[in-house]
Amino acid sequence: MKIGLVDTTFARVDMASFARREIQFNWPNVQLVERTVPGVKDLPVECKKLLDGDCDIVMAFGMPGKEPVDKMCAHEASQGLIHTQLMTNKHIIEVFVHEDEGKNDADLLEVCKNRATKHARNAVEMILKPEALKKRAATGARQGRADTGRIS
Amino acid sequence: MKIGLVDTTFARVDMASFARREIQFNWPNVQLVERTVPGVKDLPVECKKLLDGDCDIVMAFGMPGKEPVDKMCAHEASQGLIHTQLMTNKHIIEVFVHEDEGKNDADLLEVCKNRATKHARNAVEMILKPEALKKRAATGARQGRADTGRIS
Amino acid sequence: MKIGLVDTTFARVDMASFARREIQFNWPNVQLVERTVPGVKDLPVECKKLLDGDCDIVMAFGMPGKEPVDKMCAHEASQGLIHTQLMTNKHIIEVFVHEDEGKNDADLLEVCKNRATKHARNAVEMILKPEALKKRAATGARQGRADTGRIS
Amino acid sequence: MKIGLVDTTFARVDMASFARREIQFNWPNVQLVERTVPGVKDLPVECKKLLDGDCDIVMAFGMPGKEPVDKMCAHEASQGLIHTQLMTNKHIIEVFVHEDEGKNDADLLEVCKNRATKHARNAVEMILKPEALKKRAATGARQGRADTGRIS
Amino acid sequence: MKIGLVDTTFARVDMASFARREIQFNWPNVQLVERTVPGVKDLPVECKKLLDGDCDIVMAFGMPGKEPVDKMCAHEASQGLIHTQLMTNKHIIEVFVHEDEGKNDADLLEVCKNRATKHARNAVEMILKPEALKKRAATGARQGRADTGRIS
Repeated sequence: MKIGLVDTTFARVDMASFARREIQFNWPNVQLVERTVPGVKDLPVECKKLLDGDCDIVMAFGMPGKEPVDKMCAHEASQGLIHTQLMTNKHIIEVFVHEDEGKNDADLLEVCKNRATKHARNAVEMILKPEALKKRAATGARQGRADTGRIS
Repeated sequence: MKIGLVDTTFARVDMASFARREIQFNWPNVQLVERTVPGVKDLPVECKKLLDGDCDIVMAFGMPGKEPVDKMCAHEASQGLIHTQLMTNKHIIEVFVHEDEGKNDADLLEVCKNRATKHARNAVEMILKPEALKKRAATGARQGRADTGRIS
Repeated sequence: MKIGLVDTTFARVDMASFARREIQFNWPNVQLVERTVPGVKDLPVECKKLLDGDCDIVMAFGMPGKEPVDKMCAHEASQGLIHTQLMTNKHIIEVFVHEDEGKNDADLLEVCKNRATKHARNAVEMILKPEALKKRAATGARQGRADTGRIS
Repeated sequence: MKIGLVDTTFARVDMASFARREIQFNWPNVQLVERTVPGVKDLPVECKKLLDGDCDIVMAFGMPGKEPVDKMCAHEASQGLIHTQLMTNKHIIEVFVHEDEGKNDADLLEVCKNRATKHARNAVEMILKPEALKKRAATGARQGRADTGRIS
Repeated sequence: MKIGLVDTTFARVDMASFARREIQFNWPNVQLVERTVPGVKDLPVECKKLLDGDCDIVMAFGMPGKEPVDKMCAHEASQGLIHTQLMTNKHIIEVFVHEDEGKNDADLLEVCKNRATKHARNAVEMILKPEALKKRAATGARQGRADTGRIS
């Protein structure tokens, strides 16, 4: 199994490193391919190239800024990432942390670590162990913060 | 006939279970295929895979959160689901319940149950009995709440 | 000539009936094919199926609700309908009446009747008599209300 | 060289006539093909048909109304026009004048005339004389109002 | 290696000139192809033509105005540029500077120069030296202003 990790120079936290560690520690046989692009709008085509190649799934890391124009960039990037998946018939796990999600730098770092780590697990399981995701269906799972739980 | 049910780990209510029960009770010969992905933006390509396979129709369950960023995710997912339908020439019934649609947890659960159950019926009828939908044309049908009725 | 009429169970006014009457009265040789889907987001792929078949043009009827989420649904449906046209190289006449366009039920009904009737004429003329549309170019034509007229 | 002019019955100013005059006066050898559709959302597929045919470029004229729903229609039409260009590998010059751009009817008419005329020139030059556009690069050129000029 | 530079007549600052200088000075062997279109919405198909040709990457320069309608144009153009990349499997570096990003004309000019110059470097490195981008991954790199740095 091969996972692509694509991140940006724009981001202020090295989210790919958290995913890399999680994957290498728990699934040492999974291969990683890493790429860096300037910003989130450059992610879609870079992910597409990896998925057109031999990657089974790609994680796309981005950290949109606080301004309205940054929110719009994130929106456009997300649309492009969904389009890419439909063109390649493979999943891309979007791991975006908005810069204003954190109360301060330490909190932002924590959100990034939590989200990247949990999504690394999601990415591997989507390919190798989809039944694991099925068990967590509708459980209020959150990446970045604590899970919220199921209402029943 | 085969129906795909795709839901998310993010949702806080197990909507797929309501649809499953409705279908198995009323149309025991209909086959079901079930998948779970992390969030609503992962739904489009998962639905596409099922529709590229032998599913006749897919129900896509999601529960977008309350924040503006969640609303945007839902929007992007919806665009992707429509695109998927146009690529596969098959229907996807989007069953999204926004977390802020319910006045409280009990009400939210009720909305989910009502919407998932009625849309399960819609999904089956769209394939097996399209004339049933035709009879309900322009009747103010609602999924999640009571119907509003026709103005004439 | 064959026209598709696709409407929803969600709508509260039977707009397709106004179009049907207008067409059958004035162009009795035009064939009609009718379909019903749950809501506006289900319209694009249903229209696509008819256009991939032998329909020359399709009228898509919808009545988006008053809430922001309804407006967003209408937007997504409209994008899908435009995409469908580009995939099939045929026209779809979108006949959407927003529930809050009417001052009251009677007014809403009137808007629906006016819009559906005038657009039925547009649909036929776009296929059989494009020069009739050309004559009305830039005349401030309105469907649903009175025309506004040309500024010159 | 052949240029398509596509306008709407919805518009209140005959913008195509300004473009026609400009082209016929200055480039009498350029052929024109004219079409009219109901509203701006009907423009994309009509333009696509002309570009799939033998038109080298198309001008798409529209006059979105003042209401939020009109702004949304314009947005959807613009997305469709860009998509059309990517499908055909040819340019479409979008000539939209929003009804609220004018201070009054006379001013609106003036904006329309100015924009349609200047864009007619752009359309011809994009095909016959791209170096003319290159000379005006980054000069703050405006269609509809006076140019703003370069900052340097 | 061949880079396309596409700009607009609408922009008020000659951003392409900054990129040209940066590339010619540092990578004299890189070939440049330059095009000009009227506005940002005309960029996608022009970029597509260059990428369908022999350009390895394209820089798309634009300067959206201050009004809401201008912001919408920029959004539509950005969506089109992402779509173009997915169709061609090549990168487009979007170099947009919003007219209201600058405190005054001099500041706006400085932002343009900084952004165009840094993105010229990005464009070259994405093709010739992707490992250089990888070294700058998640360092809070900014084009237009000073870098913000990494949080760790």
